[in-house]
Amino acid sequence: MPHRHGPALNQRLVIAMVGLPARGKTYTARKLSRYLAWRGYKTKVFNVGNYRRDSVGAAVPAAFFDPANESAAASRQKIALEALTDMLKWIRESGQVAIYDATNSTKMRRKRIRNRCARVGVRVLFIETICNDKAIVENNIIETKLTSPDYKGVASAKAVADFRARIAHYEHAYQTITSEAISYIKVIDVGRQVVSNRIQGYLMGQIVNFLMNLHISSRKIYLTRHGQSLANMKDIVGSDSDLSPLGKKYAEKLAEYVHTHLKPPYTVWTSTLKRTRQTAKAIGHSTMQIKALDEIDAGICDGLSYEEIERRWPDEFAARATDKLHYRYPRGESYDDVIERVNPLIIEIERQNFPLLVIGHQAVLRTLYAYLADKPRSEAPHLEVPLHVIIELTPKAYGCEERRISLL
Amino acid sequence: MPHRHGPALNQRLVIAMVGLPARGKTYTARKLSRYLAWRGYKTKVFNVGNYRRDSVGAAVPAAFFDPANESAAASRQKIALEALTDMLKWIRESGQVAIYDATNSTKMRRKRIRNRCARVGVRVLFIETICNDKAIVENNIIETKLTSPDYKGVASAKAVADFRARIAHYEHAYQTITSEAISYIKVIDVGRQVVSNRIQGYLMGQIVNFLMNLHISSRKIYLTRHGQSLANMKDIVGSDSDLSPLGKKYAEKLAEYVHTHLKPPYTVWTSTLKRTRQTAKAIGHSTMQIKALDEIDAGICDGLSYEEIERRWPDEFAARATDKLHYRYPRGESYDDVIERVNPLIIEIERQNFPLLVIGHQAVLRTLYAYLADKPRSEAPHLEVPLHVIIELTPKAYGCEERRISLL
Repeated sequence: MPHRHGPALNQRLVIAMVGLPARGKTYTARKLSRYLAWRGYKTKVFNVGNYRRDSVGAAVPAAFFDPANESAAASRQKIALEALTDMLKWIRESGQVAIYDATNSTKMRRKRIRNRCARVGVRVLFIETICNDKAIVENNIIETKLTSPDYKGVASAKAVADFRARIAHYEHAYQTITSEAISYIKVIDVGRQVVSNRIQGYLMGQIVNFLMNLHISSRKIYLTRHGQSLANMKDIVGSDSDLSPLGKKYAEKLAEYVHTHLKPPYTVWTSTLKRTRQTAKAIGHSTMQIKALDEIDAGICDGLSYEEIERRWPDEFAARATDKLHYRYPRGESYDDVIERVNPLIIEIERQNFPLLVIGHQAVLRTLYAYLADKPRSEAPHLEVPLHVIIELTPKAYGCEERRISLL
Repeated sequence: MPHRHGPALNQRLVIAMVGLPARGKTYTARKLSRYLAWRGYKTKVFNVGNYRRDSVGAAVPAAFFDPANESAAASRQKIALEALTDMLKWIRESGQVAIYDATNSTKMRRKRIRNRCARVGVRVLFIETICNDKAIVENNIIETKLTSPDYKGVASAKAVADFRARIAHYEHAYQTITSEAISYIKVIDVGRQVVSNRIQGYLMGQIVNFLMNLHISSRKIYLTRHGQSLANMKDIVGSDSDLSPLGKKYAEKLAEYVHTHLKPPYTVWTSTLKRTRQTAKAIGHSTMQIKALDEIDAGICDGLSYEEIERRWPDEFAARATDKLHYRYPRGESYDDVIERVNPLIIEIERQNFPLLVIGHQAVLRTLYAYLADKPRSEAPHLEVPLHVIIELTPKAYGCEERRISLL
């Protein structure tokens, strides 16, 4: 739905995270930021922890977070306000979606955010992450200790103890969201339950739909193009040709790899085009043929070589070279269009718990890969997705591990 | 995502409604049934009220619903079980999504549903509709009295009093869902708040996303094809031609109509093709150009007349005539594909509160119209969506009012 000619991309929104430390706020903020940026919204996370580290240094003890510690509380408030002010300046001047990543765990804090946003006419959506599952919280505490700059160089046991003390200070003052009048999403126990209240407008709806499908189970995602096609051999764009002998060889190698490395249950997606279906065949696994995975529609250029396109439509050729993201083939698609078309697939990829093998095409895989590997949307049309290579992606809490396996 | 070659359409699910009378259960059940059938799931509503009317007649007094009335309670239980048994038989034999439309307002009732479904290996999703807004409940009571066969021929005041007494009996025994272990969606105050718990799998996710966007505000939806194009004049399929002189005349008439009958704020959608954008132009209103509204992709047949298609590809021509819903143009789309592509637009149409004018194309409008006017998916490719006619749709609680306005 968002489209450069439409109003959806003009929406502005502040998303304010709410929750105790180690409840997945930053994880959620980053995931969301990545997703919204990929969808084309100018998005930025304002992390109050980073402001605090810039202001008072990383190595502050838990006592700094004690609400009874008045001077520290004043200092924390000042830092939170500074981040808020910067954020509002950014969203007024150039931004679209600002994510305010802080605990925001009291009603007063949240009221201030609402008031400040109301004054500049920007709506606020609160996202509260709640976790009653002790094992998950415990795991987050350990992980935070390992990854947070606050505990760099601090001995493990000491860091964990300090972090626990810090959480206890927040628990003391914590007030969950109760007001029926405000827009919020509560994500409880890592998505086991999601409560959404006063979700208004297209963008908020997209955010709920995304968050509803997040989970933290680890599973690998494999992206590969079809094997070389007869069209590839002639440098022809689009078309629906069969695999070349080399392409068939890749299909066999791929099947071998899958049989060796993937344990059922796993899912295989192909497009509806022959070259991806032929590539999947030797695997002997049921596949989903997905129309939304078809290659970018080259419109009037489909079936031509790049050389012919340049000769027949030099202006088109030049326009595409200048701005490949927005350039739409006459009667065909742009990368922008493809991103919009594959959006439901990204939601589905997030939802799936099992390993997933996607056998697709260069342009369409570039758009999926841009999201999964957190590459800027503008770079999507230029990402390397070569033939005969499997891109193995392992989403982690922060980021995504990548391995590329050349089979030919 | 659902696709005849994929597993998504093989999912089976029982949806059991939960809630007091006059809380929108039947409304929600019917909307959902319409949506899922349109998406391609074999869906059926089993309404226990209808079983009751068949069994003991429509004219039973409120006392029949008194839990203290033992013989009536036994009779009600027997009826509910009969519907449940029929439903499970249907879903085992041929169905995919069965909606059990009853109050199911006690834990015991719900436990029985879960047990019976578990025995046949079908998952259950409960949808509880809760309404704390007295004005809405009051409105529903009046409307139920007006539309329910239970009160046919009964004087207004008497019917309302009886229905209130019936609700009171249910309120007495009502237990809201509390178990964290089961899959449920609570829709509170007509979507103001939505709680979703243990949403598992693609289908449940689609259901939440649909329900989240429902509302009951009344607003009109206008569907129209572009004005006649140069391609239309030559009976040519697809292409991206300009409006004919007659088409331009329609564009002016349409603008006149819009200025007379629609008050801002309203929304105008076009496809990305010239003929819809040219048709919108005279309105002088901002538009959203939506790629997903482009006409069905006729693939290799694009730009040819039907006569030429029949001559060049007689087999394709015949195959399409035989099964227009599933037939996919080589390198192009089927109606099935178009339904999948416009699915996000249906969600968006449901979400919008303001009047909406969609300037589209024959095939793509047929798919939208099939949903909005509740026509069977199989009929979508054959629905009448002529040129130069505005289809004005007014969604009502049960069904959709339609008016067709010929402008030329």
